[in-house]
Amino acid sequence: MAFEESIRKASIQSYEGTRKGDTIEEIEAIQNYIRNAKIVVPNKNGIKVEVINEVLAKFNIPPAEYLQVNTNYADFSRMPAIAKAMIAVDQSDADLVIARGRLGIPGSGSFLVFMDSKSRILTAATSPSHIIHNQPLEKTVYKETLEALKKVGFKEE
Amino acid sequence: MAFEESIRKASIQSYEGTRKGDTIEEIEAIQNYIRNAKIVVPNKNGIKVEVINEVLAKFNIPPAEYLQVNTNYADFSRMPAIAKAMIAVDQSDADLVIARGRLGIPGSGSFLVFMDSKSRILTAATSPSHIIHNQPLEKTVYKETLEALKKVGFKEE
Ligand SMILES: Cc1c(O)nc(CC(=O)O)c(C)c1O
Ligand SMILES: Cc1c(O)nc(CC(=O)O)c(C)c1O
Repeated sequence: MAFEESIRKASIQSYEGTRKGDTIEEIEAIQNYIRNAKIVVPNKNGIKVEVINEVLAKFNIPPAEYLQVNTNYADFSRMPAIAKAMIAVDQSDADLVIARGRLGIPGSGSFLVFMDSKSRILTAATSPSHIIHNQPLEKTVYKETLEALKKVGFKEE
Repeated sequence: MAFEESIRKASIQSYEGTRKGDTIEEIEAIQNYIRNAKIVVPNKNGIKVEVINEVLAKFNIPPAEYLQVNTNYADFSRMPAIAKAMIAVDQSDADLVIARGRLGIPGSGSFLVFMDSKSRILTAATSPSHIIHNQPLEKTVYKETLEALKKVGFKEE
């Protein structure tokens, strides 16, 4: 089931007031998309991509590539992580962007988002600000990526 | 420190390339805002508000009120939970809206967001789809609210 079909069906259910939450078919559609996607990670340095690929490998998902793109502008927007993902969608031919940045206003912590080539959000994970949890960046990114994938039903193999 | 000041300072840091992540002052500004806010929760029934208030009470935050508002349209948007929060911002005089809904496309799970009266995101938490975790709604909302507050440094008293 392609997302267009998921979204069309879910919209009819919402409109008719019969929507009961996400379905297995919708979640499987997200898994299929991720498994078959050309993935990029926009970033200033290579560290995040390596960590993300470590997690993707656990689920037999092909590795992401590093996308060199200027995302400085994203921090001026209302949702910096989402803005960063959209900048990458607009400047690459990837099917899937995994982007990480601030969730909202300064102090709101971080957000790691999986976005498709139409800028739609497939899954995500949040963490507290670095200054609150004091863990190394690599560990936080690892946990966020794992959480985002488990959220849409991926199981470690 | 008001959010306008947080945002202005952080923007200068981002522009100058000196931003090192969230600061304690920014996080304290979010805590102060939440502690002194008139809070509403848009919702079809009262259940979520009761659970949210149970968590707010643990941190000595005054209770939220239920806001009766039609949020059906939100599920047609790219980020239903965010759209729901904005509908409540636009139709109430609350300082803070706590809204919960779908994160992104069907299958992407849920998102609980704290939004201020200017539609800015202060904190949030995500959960997998109900069909993945199979917990009662009350328990999920409880955990999300707790996580969102702990994310911005609230500690149980
Ligand atoms: C620019 C930026 C910012 O200001 N805050 C955060 C959250 C944090 O401090 O952990 C992030 C991830 C970020 O990219
Ligand atoms: C309308 C709607 C939807 O389609 N999916 C979800 C996530 C879930 O199933 O847990 C939510 C919270 C929701 O409000």
